[in-house]
Amino acid sequence: MTGSALDWIALDWGTSNCRAWAMARNGSVLTEARSDKGMGQLTRDEFEPALLEMIGPWLDTAPVDVLACGMLGARQGWVEAPYRTVPCTPVGGDAALAKTIDPRLRVRVISGLKQVNPADVMRGEETQIAGWLAQNPSFDGVLCLPGTHAKWVQISASEVVSFRTFLTGELFAAIKNHTVLRHSMGSGWDEAAFEDALTDAMSRPEAIAQRLFSIRAEGLIAGLSPDAATARLSGLLIGAELAAARPYWLGQNVALIGTGGLGAHYARALSLQGVTATSADAEAMTRAGLIAARDGLSEETT
Amino acid sequence: MTGSALDWIALDWGTSNCRAWAMARNGSVLTEARSDKGMGQLTRDEFEPALLEMIGPWLDTAPVDVLACGMLGARQGWVEAPYRTVPCTPVGGDAALAKTIDPRLRVRVISGLKQVNPADVMRGEETQIAGWLAQNPSFDGVLCLPGTHAKWVQISASEVVSFRTFLTGELFAAIKNHTVLRHSMGSGWDEAAFEDALTDAMSRPEAIAQRLFSIRAEGLIAGLSPDAATARLSGLLIGAELAAARPYWLGQNVALIGTGGLGAHYARALSLQGVTATSADAEAMTRAGLIAARDGLSEETT
Repeated sequence: MTGSALDWIALDWGTSNCRAWAMARNGSVLTEARSDKGMGQLTRDEFEPALLEMIGPWLDTAPVDVLACGMLGARQGWVEAPYRTVPCTPVGGDAALAKTIDPRLRVRVISGLKQVNPADVMRGEETQIAGWLAQNPSFDGVLCLPGTHAKWVQISASEVVSFRTFLTGELFAAIKNHTVLRHSMGSGWDEAAFEDALTDAMSRPEAIAQRLFSIRAEGLIAGLSPDAATARLSGLLIGAELAAARPYWLGQNVALIGTGGLGAHYARALSLQGVTATSADAEAMTRAGLIAARDGLSEETT
Repeated sequence: MTGSALDWIALDWGTSNCRAWAMARNGSVLTEARSDKGMGQLTRDEFEPALLEMIGPWLDTAPVDVLACGMLGARQGWVEAPYRTVPCTPVGGDAALAKTIDPRLRVRVISGLKQVNPADVMRGEETQIAGWLAQNPSFDGVLCLPGTHAKWVQISASEVVSFRTFLTGELFAAIKNHTVLRHSMGSGWDEAAFEDALTDAMSRPEAIAQRLFSIRAEGLIAGLSPDAATARLSGLLIGAELAAARPYWLGQNVALIGTGGLGAHYARALSLQGVTATSADAEAMTRAGLIAARDGLSEETT
């Protein structure tokens, strides 16, 4: 890697997978690697071998900095990176140093954020937020980060003021795979069914447990298609989330940090409420956030 | 079994287990048997061997009537017993005859009920309802049947007028076992946490997806105990159900057909809303319903 030599390694280690980027001094990505060895399946001693499996080919004899975000900083992860308390900037302060055996590795882990009341936590999203703010430094408004644990985040003066987490993505998966509705689900999508369910859930969010069983009943006796059933489940859950998150988006400047289909469903759901959200790619924001966090650390240590 | 000889066999075959009772002519139970070979794990050909495993010791050479209720009457069950449409009596009409090889068995299956709009279905609960009405023939009001798929049933003039199903029990299990909340759950109970969550969910049922994640967050940063976490999850889900089922219980004459702890939680939840519900045991109601259904069939065939 001469000319554009490896300067440091950016790492996003979540519960179910891990992504690493070899970074040049100018901030460009030289190459990348992925692994499905998520934090959820690793004991503390298994992180270093799993990392070396991914990035070993990038190393020679010189030590290299690795800056990481995500669930590897949880208590059950590689090293606990204590939560910082909002209101605060999304990243900052010291990063936790992970124990390593290989002398070439210097692995530091970015802290997650916590909110005392109402109690809430994030790990990984703070880095995406930092990436967004690095690219949109004057942004004032609300960030929506769909996913397993969807987050709504209020931003003002470059700080995270408050946030709320919704179990929406994980509920979708648990219901789709582990209830009687698994017999009704399809692999496709029915946009009209999604939008109807969304509207329905927003007007009567309390009825969700009965609406869920209706998906099964209509499949049995009224010919509801599997694709419509899947889209309706998604619409009900996202609709209930939007109903509860109303203070976060109503009359606000909203940006969506999402990926693929799910991001598009949230964008459509918001637009049906009259909210036009700017969109950004989640992975790109993670990388931008890691770069911004490294710049912050460098400033402190020089 | 002379003296109190076997007259017929009552059978409750659900998704996850099966119970059989050897019945004397006078309606008393001679003996019983249980199996965990639920309908969910059996193909059509496997029902008869599974039944013989349970009741084989009760048979001699004479043919015997078996009257059954539950999911064995579903399309994927032993024989499809077509739904009857409400409003109607809980049981009645022909029972579906299952194919058998052993000449001693004459197995008939009670139909479930369906509601066209809003679409809804039940299989098994109709028999418990029939049992309740056999013992309380002049009952006019609402039956609540907690469980995997909780039902609220409006009864008038001995007929099921309408009903709604809530996925509450299955949601509880799916969230407890298949989301991040599994790390926070205990095996005990905290009544105060249950009641707080119930009140919370009834006043803001739309906030449930955020309240769910709070259970995890408070476990991480505010010391919420595992028992309180479990009770809070239950309170949130039952509270959301009660909020949506309000037209069914508000100012109504309510009876609960439940078992054990879950029945007690529903009774407590209703009493906090000022509703004093009569309670009956679910298994006893199933047996009473099968007896009532058999009496109905006998009348038609004589």
